[in-house]
Amino acid sequence: MSSPREQREFFAVRTVGEALAGFRPARRTGTERVALEDALGRVPAEPVPAPRALPGFARATVDGYAVRAADTYGVSDGQPGYLDLAGEARMGRPPDAALRPGAAIAIATGAPLPPGADAVVKVEHTQTTLPGLIEVVRPTTPGEGMIRLDEDAVAGAELARPGRPLRAADLGMLAAAGVTELPVRVRPRVAIASTGDELVPGATAELEVGQVRDATAPALAALVREAGGEPRFAGIVPDDRGALEATLRRALTGSEEGGDAGGCDLLVVSAGSSVGARDETAAAIAALGEPGIWCHGLAFRPGKPTLLADCGGVPVIGLPGNPRSALVVFRLIGMPLVRLVGGCTEPPPEPSVTARLGRDLPSAAGRLDVVQVALDEGVATPLFGSSALLSILARADGYLVVPEAATGLPAGAEVEVTLYR
Amino acid sequence: MSSPREQREFFAVRTVGEALAGFRPARRTGTERVALEDALGRVPAEPVPAPRALPGFARATVDGYAVRAADTYGVSDGQPGYLDLAGEARMGRPPDAALRPGAAIAIATGAPLPPGADAVVKVEHTQTTLPGLIEVVRPTTPGEGMIRLDEDAVAGAELARPGRPLRAADLGMLAAAGVTELPVRVRPRVAIASTGDELVPGATAELEVGQVRDATAPALAALVREAGGEPRFAGIVPDDRGALEATLRRALTGSEEGGDAGGCDLLVVSAGSSVGARDETAAAIAALGEPGIWCHGLAFRPGKPTLLADCGGVPVIGLPGNPRSALVVFRLIGMPLVRLVGGCTEPPPEPSVTARLGRDLPSAAGRLDVVQVALDEGVATPLFGSSALLSILARADGYLVVPEAATGLPAGAEVEVTLYR
Repeated sequence: MSSPREQREFFAVRTVGEALAGFRPARRTGTERVALEDALGRVPAEPVPAPRALPGFARATVDGYAVRAADTYGVSDGQPGYLDLAGEARMGRPPDAALRPGAAIAIATGAPLPPGADAVVKVEHTQTTLPGLIEVVRPTTPGEGMIRLDEDAVAGAELARPGRPLRAADLGMLAAAGVTELPVRVRPRVAIASTGDELVPGATAELEVGQVRDATAPALAALVREAGGEPRFAGIVPDDRGALEATLRRALTGSEEGGDAGGCDLLVVSAGSSVGARDETAAAIAALGEPGIWCHGLAFRPGKPTLLADCGGVPVIGLPGNPRSALVVFRLIGMPLVRLVGGCTEPPPEPSVTARLGRDLPSAAGRLDVVQVALDEGVATPLFGSSALLSILARADGYLVVPEAATGLPAGAEVEVTLYR
Repeated sequence: MSSPREQREFFAVRTVGEALAGFRPARRTGTERVALEDALGRVPAEPVPAPRALPGFARATVDGYAVRAADTYGVSDGQPGYLDLAGEARMGRPPDAALRPGAAIAIATGAPLPPGADAVVKVEHTQTTLPGLIEVVRPTTPGEGMIRLDEDAVAGAELARPGRPLRAADLGMLAAAGVTELPVRVRPRVAIASTGDELVPGATAELEVGQVRDATAPALAALVREAGGEPRFAGIVPDDRGALEATLRRALTGSEEGGDAGGCDLLVVSAGSSVGARDETAAAIAALGEPGIWCHGLAFRPGKPTLLADCGGVPVIGLPGNPRSALVVFRLIGMPLVRLVGGCTEPPPEPSVTARLGRDLPSAAGRLDVVQVALDEGVATPLFGSSALLSILARADGYLVVPEAATGLPAGAEVEVTLYR
């Protein structure tokens, strides 16, 4: 058992920071057009400019009277100004005529200002004392009580930024501009293969002693979705190099003969848990294509046996066999890769909270530790236990990171906890 | 114009806190069963217990030898212990036989321990000097190098908590337990009606002066989806009480005659922007059913003209006519209502960040202010402008809340900014 392990020690082990900065596959998904109503969270593939100014006409923002501001200069409660009431602006219709000097037009919030008007006096600052005449008791200035025709967007303004997932307000701006569909990145197809002689499908009702249902693949699929990808199950493979290589090649290219029919943009392998199974996985991945394996391990707990590779232009992640380690690694390394391949350069912010550490936390220098924690009234209590226990992840409210440079954290230390959503 | 407005002043204006605490409609959506792979983010309707203990058998968590711990007591490098190598545990298969005292069985991470074994000695703490014999140089204790048969979950443990949206790790635990589908709350059907004589559908290619495309409805639909609801467009209605009432009744019940065929669980009306249009909306909503209107306004900027009602058991939100106000109100008041109706009692945390305020921020006491901000290197710069401008929301990185009690915040103050995702 020891010989392959000793051999692996010659291979590259990287820090998480090195992996995130250095393993940057060039692959990007293509472009497709989606309807605006399906575009929430999608990643624009190119800038979408406003075809025309928005709102496109000067609009009242208060209920009152459209005026020439100069006609109100100097008025006050003691010395009101008088303007001829020359009609009413109708909502949703072009103005009937231009505004004459010395006149005012009744206008409701949202209605278009007539040509010649440059302000709207609030109804509260007026009185109607005689029919056809309004009394103005507060002066106004040009631009008051209204928005300009290009105040929401000038023609050509960028309404969607390539690389930033679309938010609700973006959809509103695009809708206002008449954009009904737009080019976005295709969701990265992420193939998930599970290896291990002990694994059986989740739908298996009764287990024999020694068998476990594949819990990692469905949880990984959920993380893929959260990162904007489209998960595909490539199946459960026994710890056999030939079977593994055939399955991975099929997932990678869509066929065993190569090509890219129905292939994937990212391949995730949750490796068998034993050292021997991991070595089989490494060998199978190495055989998939050039340039091949980029690192054989990460200075990271839990998650040291993580493998990163580029096989013929498809990034491949070999995850540790323990479900918890696999999910922690995928969150730290895999989700950023899914976003990268999917063209997302501005990922949405993660919720986090500052807390006090509930107990001492030992850690080895040179290794990044991800520690699951439960939060209670501002205290973060580390949840310890074997990385084979998925329940620790399910019980956690979030996690904290002890960076490579630290040798541990004392109880009471202020820590930043990233929260699960 | 002033008479209906004066009349409205007699109606109830509430604080945001009062609205969130006091307006708690009893309506809850029903239950449906979904496949595990479609359950991410869905809200469990009832506890899902583990049918059996997990993993269901004692498993090795290291590569090494299954032993009786007592057989290793007192051993050291200088005084190794010797155990008979009595076979190998096979991955995924029941053990062949029980472990005899004085014997050891080779075992890989994840394989089942044979009966009689209570620990696994790491391979690093052993040597194989003679065939059929292993030398142990470190003592072990019961439970070391393994997990117990119920260490991930005891039989009956709660694998999904009613009211908390399912996360990736939950799906993993459910998959491990053989749960392939589970009961979740039906997504709340949220009908969105837009009113305003100036509004035209987003697909309108060319606008006349005075017309604006409906930007609010698609943005609201996105927020409904974020809150776990299913948006439905009820259409654009002119500012006419009869037409409005008919449209709202149809949205509410699925027909103009009443009943609940295809109705909604929550009705959102983005009201016309003028005072008159808002009064029409209030009257139309009041006519929809008992107990009717709960409040006619919120002490809230931007968003004072917000109306909350319960019409025959369906919560109704009347939003301000300005798109930005409508979206701010919906985020603060509407999304929590969507979650409440959808049975979500533990909403996912929102991302936020602490920042320094970039300039003085005036605010009236007794009114909650929601201020959009841009963030740059820890400085939050308020984005001012008319609440008719949707672009302010699209440009913002997040928002801060000036609570009712405050009369403003000075430049440099530490503020908590909720970030948009």
